[in-house]
Amino acid sequence: MSPNNATRRRRPTIHDVAREAGVSRGTVSRVLNGGHYVSPAAAEAVNAAIRRTGYVVNRHARSLITGRSGSAAFLLTEPQEKFFEDPNFNVLLRGCTQALATHDIPLLLMIAGTREEQRRITRYISAGHVDGVLLVSSHTGDPVAEALVHAGIPVVMCGQPMGHSTRLAHVAADDRDGARQMVRHLLTAGRRRIGTVTGPLDTPGGVERLAGYREVLADAGLPADDSLVEAGDYSRDGGAAAASALLTRRPDLDALFVASDLMAQGALAVLERAGRRVPADVAVGGFDDSTAAVGSRPALTTIRQPWDRISAEMVRVLLSQIGGEDSSAVILPTELIRRESA
Amino acid sequence: MSPNNATRRRRPTIHDVAREAGVSRGTVSRVLNGGHYVSPAAAEAVNAAIRRTGYVVNRHARSLITGRSGSAAFLLTEPQEKFFEDPNFNVLLRGCTQALATHDIPLLLMIAGTREEQRRITRYISAGHVDGVLLVSSHTGDPVAEALVHAGIPVVMCGQPMGHSTRLAHVAADDRDGARQMVRHLLTAGRRRIGTVTGPLDTPGGVERLAGYREVLADAGLPADDSLVEAGDYSRDGGAAAASALLTRRPDLDALFVASDLMAQGALAVLERAGRRVPADVAVGGFDDSTAAVGSRPALTTIRQPWDRISAEMVRVLLSQIGGEDSSAVILPTELIRRESA
Repeated sequence: MSPNNATRRRRPTIHDVAREAGVSRGTVSRVLNGGHYVSPAAAEAVNAAIRRTGYVVNRHARSLITGRSGSAAFLLTEPQEKFFEDPNFNVLLRGCTQALATHDIPLLLMIAGTREEQRRITRYISAGHVDGVLLVSSHTGDPVAEALVHAGIPVVMCGQPMGHSTRLAHVAADDRDGARQMVRHLLTAGRRRIGTVTGPLDTPGGVERLAGYREVLADAGLPADDSLVEAGDYSRDGGAAAASALLTRRPDLDALFVASDLMAQGALAVLERAGRRVPADVAVGGFDDSTAAVGSRPALTTIRQPWDRISAEMVRVLLSQIGGEDSSAVILPTELIRRESA
Repeated sequence: MSPNNATRRRRPTIHDVAREAGVSRGTVSRVLNGGHYVSPAAAEAVNAAIRRTGYVVNRHARSLITGRSGSAAFLLTEPQEKFFEDPNFNVLLRGCTQALATHDIPLLLMIAGTREEQRRITRYISAGHVDGVLLVSSHTGDPVAEALVHAGIPVVMCGQPMGHSTRLAHVAADDRDGARQMVRHLLTAGRRRIGTVTGPLDTPGGVERLAGYREVLADAGLPADDSLVEAGDYSRDGGAAAASALLTRRPDLDALFVASDLMAQGALAVLERAGRRVPADVAVGGFDDSTAAVGSRPALTTIRQPWDRISAEMVRVLLSQIGGEDSSAVILPTELIRRESA
């Protein structure tokens, strides 16, 4: 990502053009960028000087030479509202920004929730304006990852890729083991009618955390019971709706494993309105250890995702791909954090 | 922003290179992007075909020809935390994204809270990777706007520029008149000891809303009293701290004009802890009409900023600048929204 000084010294620079045209470097810059704030006479002088010096517009010339833009994208293929609502994105984005800053690489955020936005952003990225993409996109069949890989753009996904024919580099927390730890914790506390609010079942977090829940119940000899399972969408309102459906169907449940802290906040509100004490009547376990976990009343017992390590590893894997390495996968351990709700 | 088809037809395309090399377009793409996932033999064939066809790497070539990247940036020169905390950014960002979408232009978000990040992002933008910048940066002496204008990049600021020697295009709500409306409303309701929590006094919203507050008090013959004025920082915690300081200094105050809804939320919490009823003991007026206003208890009487019109106008002014028009300024009216707090 360092400028190719040797190459640049051999070419005429913007300073040569300015000297030749008898104008400032800023005026040359403005002509190159479309000519606003420049008189017709100055623009003509600059254009003549460009021809005489053989100057190649440096901003793109540098990319032509190095094949690099010197930037990376943080691309979220979710609706914008989720980005602002879910505290995980704030933490992940800050970690990635900081990890890239040590390499002096700026991070651009791109939010593409609709197919139309995805097409627009994919076209921009494929045009070479970023060197690589940190992709936060987990839904099965999301076409963005494959389109970018097909265009030769290094991509690292956050979370395990689902339903992709291409091998994709990714960094993920161990979702299944996190779910196992939480459900074992609920069993140890004597709970036997444990419901779960899952993530969307076309996402790895949805599928894997449900699988971990089922494994532990099966190991404990408890029957798999679909009336105890309800899918959410990782939003607070979605968590409330799912918890409400579970409670109506199974008023006897004594614990809830909710696959995200934000959904667990929604579930806590539903339980409070229904007059259930947490954890006395119903124990509630979350997932993420986000700011939502500490901000809940009662504070959430949850599974910590190692966001600092996730962001650092995503950047490390991306930079090594940009450097020509093959794609790779990193799975990081999760940890039970005990607070008040379970 | 439409592709220059006439020009492109005259040049060899990536398809010509693929045909010549006997490989797929995807393979050519991958070679052009650094050569990962490509065998050495295929890479050599592609490079030979590029030489034979005279192909110029299209992604940058298109920019070289048109001088345009086909994208715009939403650049925030505030710490990332503010972006997630303040609901105004969500609304403004969505409006800008939608307004640009009708022109098929993707919007890139860039957050540059530190000088180091600002330097990094300015360098990226000045390299021509975006056609123009929607700048959300209001602090006096912020160097980003001038650096971008100097580099010839079209820039439109959100809010009135302060302390800039360059003439800057901007779109702003009428802050001063909004403050006047609110303070008149408080006077009409019989309040006479009206305190104010201002925005940062190096921002136009901080300065202009304070000026509007002072004008109306002066018109009403009430003395200017600095013990009734405390500066906040537009955050919830900052609003709480400022309200707390005011209440300690002036326990007799009967109204508070708070220069943002988020700060007003913090002030409401302080008043509740101090045992003051709102609005019976202390009337509270906010500013913004953000989601924080409706979400407060009691719901906030506030000044509506016309975010939809602000974002639409910012995009309109930016596109006309990209098209070569001169910079311009737009000031939009604000409106008193009465709810419960005043």
